[in-house]
Amino acid sequence: MSNISKEEISVKFQELQKSICAALEKADGKSRFNYEKWEHLHGGGGITSIIQQGAIIEKGGVNYSGVSGNVPKFLVSEEEHSITKGATSENTFYATGVSIVIHPDNPWVPIIHMNVRYFEMNNGVWWFGGGIDLTPHYIIDEDVKFFHQSLKTVCDKYSLDFYPKYKKWADDYFFINHRNETRGVGGIFFDRLTENNELDKMQLLNFILDLGYSFAPTYTELIKRNAEKRFTAENKNWQLLRRGRYVEFNLVYDKGTQFGLQTNGRIESILMSLPQHASWQYDYKPMEMSEEANTLMKLKKEIDWI
Amino acid sequence: MSNISKEEISVKFQELQKSICAALEKADGKSRFNYEKWEHLHGGGGITSIIQQGAIIEKGGVNYSGVSGNVPKFLVSEEEHSITKGATSENTFYATGVSIVIHPDNPWVPIIHMNVRYFEMNNGVWWFGGGIDLTPHYIIDEDVKFFHQSLKTVCDKYSLDFYPKYKKWADDYFFINHRNETRGVGGIFFDRLTENNELDKMQLLNFILDLGYSFAPTYTELIKRNAEKRFTAENKNWQLLRRGRYVEFNLVYDKGTQFGLQTNGRIESILMSLPQHASWQYDYKPMEMSEEANTLMKLKKEIDWI
Repeated sequence: MSNISKEEISVKFQELQKSICAALEKADGKSRFNYEKWEHLHGGGGITSIIQQGAIIEKGGVNYSGVSGNVPKFLVSEEEHSITKGATSENTFYATGVSIVIHPDNPWVPIIHMNVRYFEMNNGVWWFGGGIDLTPHYIIDEDVKFFHQSLKTVCDKYSLDFYPKYKKWADDYFFINHRNETRGVGGIFFDRLTENNELDKMQLLNFILDLGYSFAPTYTELIKRNAEKRFTAENKNWQLLRRGRYVEFNLVYDKGTQFGLQTNGRIESILMSLPQHASWQYDYKPMEMSEEANTLMKLKKEIDWI
Repeated sequence: MSNISKEEISVKFQELQKSICAALEKADGKSRFNYEKWEHLHGGGGITSIIQQGAIIEKGGVNYSGVSGNVPKFLVSEEEHSITKGATSENTFYATGVSIVIHPDNPWVPIIHMNVRYFEMNNGVWWFGGGIDLTPHYIIDEDVKFFHQSLKTVCDKYSLDFYPKYKKWADDYFFINHRNETRGVGGIFFDRLTENNELDKMQLLNFILDLGYSFAPTYTELIKRNAEKRFTAENKNWQLLRRGRYVEFNLVYDKGTQFGLQTNGRIESILMSLPQHASWQYDYKPMEMSEEANTLMKLKKEIDWI
């Protein structure tokens, strides 16, 4: 039985942030991360690390945060899940995690997102949450298979239920309802993961960290495969349109963004997920049989990529 | 006592749409509006008219719609204003209006938005709503004064209360809470305007139409004043950043957008408000005393522009 503290988890997340930044800097080869420490209005703070105008990464953020405050109303009232039952906005919370969004310059390299987080309330309730999802501007089946296989490999070490369950959760979560399309090719997503008969807190933390440390090798492999590919102005235009959809998802649906906006989070850290450039074109429809149309066709739930 | 029907109001709005498109085409001198008729899933439809890659207007929409359906839940339950009291989602509604957003190419020409609308339920309740607001990339005081004076002139013809009341409402409504800045220099905004001791339905319709017909002369004057001005790459970059804020407002706060997304509206018509190109840069801060800093300083509520 383990009783790991929020401070210890916070330190683990900060180490994860540093490790990922180092790996991404190495893969980029040109730009470095710029670290900025900040304090939260109601307690705690974070370290925002941003990379811009790299050789590979046009704009990316790898953010650590550990903030506390009163449990926000929307969390108390809107959730019927028993884990928060009885909590009121008199309760305090501590939330810590690492959030990543990388927007590459080359349209053949996918956008990637990861979040791993730990949340606890002063009534003893705690949980882990997180997810990784991939948003290729152009879907390359074998890359998507590799990506999902990497996630499954981590999941399977802890529970054979994890990958199928959390893959489905990602399909449902990373969905742009008003477009009736997925944000990308999904990945895994999970929330309110707390100890059970099979896994205790330490094992769950290990799962989270294992997942976190799989991020850099997986993404740098996708960079290696695609960053040298040549692209046209049309490819770039399509990338900007897909980024527009990414913006739509993040501002309309993303719960992390909403949590940040509603808890007076540090706005520049929250919105680091938005791309340097994005574009909207009225009623754009790709040519039939084009690679763009092929990608659109695959922005669906329930595709078994492995 | 007038008893003008929703059909008559719809026709007036369609005439307004055509008149504004004609005036904007004339001002642009290059591109023409492309009209597209569409039908709503649950009844009614609209005419979306879009202009792209003009000499003045990079992307703009002047949309008419007249849709019906069951009163959406969020309208029934969330509003305590007595006007909707007693209505349930068994009730049906009809909503018609004209919505405009114009994104000019030249950063010295402001973005403009207008919406005029009529809403009725089958329980006899009806109201008008609307607003016009201006979002200059660079605030030029005398242009803003001209803009607000034009609105005040229309308002004052109907009630001396309108301008001060609706100007304040616009300040509060067109506010990007998470940035603690206004979207632009405001204008007027109002909702749930129904007959009272002073103004009957016909007079309110006249106010709405008067406002609608003031749009083109006001905006084309602002085009005339600014469209020939030369701009630098830095001006353009700033424009893209300001457009990013416009996207944030529309996707996070705009009630018209939310209404559309939540009532299964025609997504390309709703999101025509988003610019062709927008940009986000981490923690961008304009140089002190620059024109950009000067504009930022004036993105505040409660400035008396007249």
